[in-house]
Amino acid sequence: MPLDRRTLLGTWSAMLAAGALGGSTVATATGGTTRFRRIATEEACTTPDVVEAMRALAQGPSPSLDMGLVRSTYVPNPPTRWLAALLDFESERLKIMDAANVDMHVLSLSSPGVQMFDADLACSLATSANDLMADYVRRRPQRFAMLASFAPHAPERAAKEMQRVVDAHKVGGFIINSHTFNEYLDDPKFWAIFEAAEALQRPIYLHPRQPSEGMAVPFMEYSMSSAMWGFAVETGTHALRLILGGVFDRFPKLQLVLGHMGEGLPYYLTRIDHWYPILFREGRVARLKMRPSDYFRRNFLITTSGMETHDVLQFCLTILGADRIMWAIDYPFEDMAPAVRFMDSAPISDADKARIYSGNAERVFHIAT
Amino acid sequence: MPLDRRTLLGTWSAMLAAGALGGSTVATATGGTTRFRRIATEEACTTPDVVEAMRALAQGPSPSLDMGLVRSTYVPNPPTRWLAALLDFESERLKIMDAANVDMHVLSLSSPGVQMFDADLACSLATSANDLMADYVRRRPQRFAMLASFAPHAPERAAKEMQRVVDAHKVGGFIINSHTFNEYLDDPKFWAIFEAAEALQRPIYLHPRQPSEGMAVPFMEYSMSSAMWGFAVETGTHALRLILGGVFDRFPKLQLVLGHMGEGLPYYLTRIDHWYPILFREGRVARLKMRPSDYFRRNFLITTSGMETHDVLQFCLTILGADRIMWAIDYPFEDMAPAVRFMDSAPISDADKARIYSGNAERVFHIAT
Repeated sequence: MPLDRRTLLGTWSAMLAAGALGGSTVATATGGTTRFRRIATEEACTTPDVVEAMRALAQGPSPSLDMGLVRSTYVPNPPTRWLAALLDFESERLKIMDAANVDMHVLSLSSPGVQMFDADLACSLATSANDLMADYVRRRPQRFAMLASFAPHAPERAAKEMQRVVDAHKVGGFIINSHTFNEYLDDPKFWAIFEAAEALQRPIYLHPRQPSEGMAVPFMEYSMSSAMWGFAVETGTHALRLILGGVFDRFPKLQLVLGHMGEGLPYYLTRIDHWYPILFREGRVARLKMRPSDYFRRNFLITTSGMETHDVLQFCLTILGADRIMWAIDYPFEDMAPAVRFMDSAPISDADKARIYSGNAERVFHIAT
Repeated sequence: MPLDRRTLLGTWSAMLAAGALGGSTVATATGGTTRFRRIATEEACTTPDVVEAMRALAQGPSPSLDMGLVRSTYVPNPPTRWLAALLDFESERLKIMDAANVDMHVLSLSSPGVQMFDADLACSLATSANDLMADYVRRRPQRFAMLASFAPHAPERAAKEMQRVVDAHKVGGFIINSHTFNEYLDDPKFWAIFEAAEALQRPIYLHPRQPSEGMAVPFMEYSMSSAMWGFAVETGTHALRLILGGVFDRFPKLQLVLGHMGEGLPYYLTRIDHWYPILFREGRVARLKMRPSDYFRRNFLITTSGMETHDVLQFCLTILGADRIMWAIDYPFEDMAPAVRFMDSAPISDADKARIYSGNAERVFHIAT
């Protein structure tokens, strides 16, 4: 299939004009008496260059579980609702944000980002996407911020791109979509990335993608590799590998962000803390300076994306405190209005709500107040 | 290495006599003013026959992640502390139970049970273990109950053994240690087991083992395949496969039990409920009669084994209610006294505590009150 970017863009422009996007029911947020600044921190987008590369990728074979998502999201013509929404920055997205009282989207390239392309293509796509997204942020600094992408499989070039986007675009954070060609970031060959993030004082959002090939089999039925289950297993496992691999002893100020209420880890911290010293005494795992949960509390923040249940929110507040939780929607895969209603109606203090809605994001992503 | 059961038994008897077991600090339970009957529902044991077969298994090659556990637990001579404790029913176990105010152990064959042996051997070991354990239960019906084992990979023979142990020994439940040779029970070829359990009105405890080979790779470092993380991923994934595979539409009265506060599933129920209908509409998963969480609440109970944190307990009480939670220690892998202190000091009502400590176990495992 020939790639025709103009056809693609023409089609989604037509869809925008026809009002075919925005499947969300846009209700007015129920709101409290306090006016919160609502900064949503895991909001996906894409660029025409990335779409073109995804369409080429979709033609080839790959054992990756993400190929289903790649083929169903990027190939159909006319574009799927999700693809159209991902490509849209200033039209329906802003209208829905306005209707739902969402002040700002912290934009990031939709998973799996550039991580299914060879390193050269991944580096070049990341740079062009970062520059395009930075243009939108520059045009509307009250409405958009961004997390920059890079190619984790080219760690030295990644570190340079990280420095470049901070210098050139004042970018406030980065995003990595879990494994890259089935490799995890606890391997020290990737640590130039962590060194750069720590030096630049910018967090890395460790976003889900479908499970790596080495753990794929039980997730290949019932769509279990998806957001329903496999995303969390993949990303929670990755995050725990980083803790147990000593990443945060080497980079004590590094901050990571996990979506979806911490990808399950908050539920397990006590059990992990209980078993780690037993396994250490048996010589099965290397020495850490602190308990695993100490790293989780010091080096991780979590977001509420796609986990809109007050019980889980209150549990996480108890376990982690209000300074380590941020609000997120996961647009366009989740709708904006319910995410606002969820947080507006959360039975927590206004002070905590303000931290979760905006204060923490302003602090960790360097967003002007 | 020649197998010498008499040497093995002689050694652990000598260890018992020397007081070398019971690494637990046995504190007196802090207790409330109410006297609770404390029934612990996930308490491991083994039998000399199984140990002999495990030692033979340990000599051979196997890609199973459980082989590390098999070799470290069953091979060392003199026996490890854990093996000695697993083989002991009426000596140190009862003393520690008395000191910790534990009324009853619901005994089960330690994971992976008979599930690493060929079907013929597995059937015969299960039968001999069930009969031996039933002898201990018969001798001390106030102190012991049991969950019977069978060979899931011989489903028809399993169903016969299930009927036999209920008829002959009045057994109140069964145990399966997650996958069997990497196969999961959502495959209808196993459903004779569920049919029998439902007809006999006896629950099946779906106990962890290490991840199946198809998901092994990311768990092979940092001892992550263990109780620290992989057990829950394996078993939670298995349980969700059963829900999504329609097991509980076919067997609506079947009851399963998950340890370790539900192997993560309670944390995710809202997200699973949210994504299931989206994936169904896309044709990616088959129709279910109810929401996934409805099955979890109707067809599952959870236990507290190895997750001794009041925050998680209170979260689960909110999500599932006190009728679906049972107390468990996971002896000898967890100590008895802390498990009692955890539940005695739980900030919940005495009525809920009584359900969790004994009422639910009496009801679902047919334990005389």
